[in-house]
Amino acid sequence: MSALPSVLDRLDHDTDAALERLFALLRIPSISTDPAYAGDCRRAAEWLAADLGSMGFSAHVCPTGGHPIVLAEDHDADGPHVLFYGHYDVQPVDPLALWARDPFDPAIVTRPDGSREIAGRGASDDKGQLMTFLEACRAWKAVAGRLPCKVTVLLEGEEESSGEHLPGFLESHKARLGAASIALVCDTGMWNATTPAITTSLRGMLGEEVVVKAASRDLHSGHYGGAAANPITVLARALAELHDRDGRVTLAGFYDGVPEPSDDVKRQWQSIDFKTEDFLGEIGLRFPAGETDRTCLEQVWSRPTAEINGITGGYTGAGFKTVIPAEARAKVSFRLVGDQDPEAIRASFRDFIRARLRPDCEVEFIAHGASRGVTMPVAAPAFARARQALSDEWQTEAAFIGGGGSIPVVGDFRRLLGLDTLLIGFSLDDDRIHSPNEKYDLRCFDKGRRSWARVLAALGAS
Amino acid sequence: MSALPSVLDRLDHDTDAALERLFALLRIPSISTDPAYAGDCRRAAEWLAADLGSMGFSAHVCPTGGHPIVLAEDHDADGPHVLFYGHYDVQPVDPLALWARDPFDPAIVTRPDGSREIAGRGASDDKGQLMTFLEACRAWKAVAGRLPCKVTVLLEGEEESSGEHLPGFLESHKARLGAASIALVCDTGMWNATTPAITTSLRGMLGEEVVVKAASRDLHSGHYGGAAANPITVLARALAELHDRDGRVTLAGFYDGVPEPSDDVKRQWQSIDFKTEDFLGEIGLRFPAGETDRTCLEQVWSRPTAEINGITGGYTGAGFKTVIPAEARAKVSFRLVGDQDPEAIRASFRDFIRARLRPDCEVEFIAHGASRGVTMPVAAPAFARARQALSDEWQTEAAFIGGGGSIPVVGDFRRLLGLDTLLIGFSLDDDRIHSPNEKYDLRCFDKGRRSWARVLAALGAS
Repeated sequence: MSALPSVLDRLDHDTDAALERLFALLRIPSISTDPAYAGDCRRAAEWLAADLGSMGFSAHVCPTGGHPIVLAEDHDADGPHVLFYGHYDVQPVDPLALWARDPFDPAIVTRPDGSREIAGRGASDDKGQLMTFLEACRAWKAVAGRLPCKVTVLLEGEEESSGEHLPGFLESHKARLGAASIALVCDTGMWNATTPAITTSLRGMLGEEVVVKAASRDLHSGHYGGAAANPITVLARALAELHDRDGRVTLAGFYDGVPEPSDDVKRQWQSIDFKTEDFLGEIGLRFPAGETDRTCLEQVWSRPTAEINGITGGYTGAGFKTVIPAEARAKVSFRLVGDQDPEAIRASFRDFIRARLRPDCEVEFIAHGASRGVTMPVAAPAFARARQALSDEWQTEAAFIGGGGSIPVVGDFRRLLGLDTLLIGFSLDDDRIHSPNEKYDLRCFDKGRRSWARVLAALGAS
Repeated sequence: MSALPSVLDRLDHDTDAALERLFALLRIPSISTDPAYAGDCRRAAEWLAADLGSMGFSAHVCPTGGHPIVLAEDHDADGPHVLFYGHYDVQPVDPLALWARDPFDPAIVTRPDGSREIAGRGASDDKGQLMTFLEACRAWKAVAGRLPCKVTVLLEGEEESSGEHLPGFLESHKARLGAASIALVCDTGMWNATTPAITTSLRGMLGEEVVVKAASRDLHSGHYGGAAANPITVLARALAELHDRDGRVTLAGFYDGVPEPSDDVKRQWQSIDFKTEDFLGEIGLRFPAGETDRTCLEQVWSRPTAEINGITGGYTGAGFKTVIPAEARAKVSFRLVGDQDPEAIRASFRDFIRARLRPDCEVEFIAHGASRGVTMPVAAPAFARARQALSDEWQTEAAFIGGGGSIPVVGDFRRLLGLDTLLIGFSLDDDRIHSPNEKYDLRCFDKGRRSWARVLAALGAS
């Protein structure tokens, strides 16, 4: 691929325009979980389809029952066919008061050490990341006239919410999408600020919302306190029993299908320079909080978890109100690995809560997303080629790592399209994704674009 | 008191004007716990001082460090000196969506059975109640030219919030206020819709807010779940242990100073027509939730309690967000009886929470109000006179009852002014005070005004 040096050169000289494009996308508040932003999600999809169209892709905004999916194809190349996936939706921004600037007014911020970052919701997750791939394609098209691979781009808008319409879309477009030989997903991170990584395993995710109800209305705790069931107490007592004293999840059957990492993988993890004190220290913590017989790395890469992501009940405003509320609610998620069955665990969780209700209480459950964990075949040739391309760009050997998060589409690609996935991304642990003041290092954006240009070349040479 | 029949007659013919006055007061959103309504609290105080002035009281709005106190005196009578207390502040109105009408646009609502109620925040607690007393005074002044007793009226604006400035006010006005021989408080209820009551014991109240903090920022539960301490879990586990399996509060020393009711009081309670199924059935419940070895009546009248009044942490909006929050918080209140020491229990609660923190967690506490429980000397002559006056009005024997709620001023009157209190009020259990759709039965308002006219006459005859 003799064009590669020219492509990389073009990327280096196109940074200002690339940032201008990214900022235009970041300004669209495409918060998928909140129905108030449905119009913005559509706008983000339309913006992306137009951008892909402008560089020669055949691009369409495809309606679903929820937020639309962008599907774009450029199949002029002789090389193999890759399916790139990203998502244009973003997380909510609350608590807004903790943001240093408007989350949807992106800017380049220079840090005290002179390095620069892109600040804004979605800068890292996932708009900044997906644009590294689009910019690499743009440079290839501009310099060489065509891409090194046949490329299909699939951009969804429900990754941060239900994700419910993507599997159906994959099934109904199976003939076109399944023609690819591998999927590329840019929604993961570097090993550290200087070492790129390919994520080779991901935890699945199950989301549940539980509403405990007692009295028919909010009560005065003076008149009824001591006699009336308090749903906050009932909920707290049930959730308190989700873990035992050793940090293990107590749901019946929860650990069914949880594998031990292979000796090979364990050896590789031991060779990685992972320091618990650095990992936790960056977020102000010191002690791993999970299963007491597991290392911190195992806790986040290979072990399933249960976490309470939200809880609310009664009076939560300023001052005090002596109320016994009619209901209390919590959002609980489970990270899943190996062959853990999300729906079996959903049923087990509901049984667990029901068994802990006291008389007079009722419970309602709201199902949120469910996905299984996945593990990639790291011995396949594409993994070695991509690893080499990343190592060339960053001038250090790229790492094969585990991932604690969940990217349901990776499991769907395997199950519905028969595709393995190369998970390559350039976010850093301190990017504050899902939190106030999300950022993406400008260096990651720059070298991320160059990395994709190299990965496309490496895959195209096969 | 030959003027009494004319006074009662005047009250019966003055209902429309009395309601007009009450509605004017109800329209003022004097929510004391929310600083945004400080101006409205002042307006309510000024409205009341003007109304008392218009009937011949010497009335003043007295500044405090918080919401002002209304102090009004009419000491022309030969009779004994009574100190009347009420409060013009009201509870917050959330959740607003559950109100059938604007909480601050009061109206008379006719129920299916033809009876009528006054709908609006404060209709019962305490604006409607305090106006029953003011209307009785107005009628006495209009008909007889003067009151049967020397009357001092004290109306505060922090009963539903901190209550912090009243004790200092009582101390600094001790000479004037302590000249009374008894206090009258209209902030309690009837025994049932047809039986008036004098409340002879009240539980005290201690309010605490606890904030558990872990990581330095909100975290993505995929990246950190399993390794990072979750403050919601830590808080839920601590609060889950506040009660043991028998419903007893587990704080060290909590039951120190908790008395058993006297045999006399127990006998009287047994003679009262209290049905647990009716008391709980009205709010959609069936089973007393407190100490398993106590009756429902004991649970709400004579036993101390711990209740979680509010809890919040993480993402609580629509949809799902896989966050491990940096902090979680709860508001917890304790109802106290006998000689329980609020500050000792505050310290015990804080020790209890601190002992249940896990490594990496910190806790902050915010102190809310503290008051002791009180018990009245029911054998004193004023109690018999007031009971007879109530029995005459309602044509059934008034009950001496316990009260589950807390009215801190009653303890302050005893401690700071040496005064016992006649707790007489006309609210009903279904008034939904502190809840959406608060109401006050029009019959209670009418007969309440007449009751106070009689009680003033009865006390004045002594």
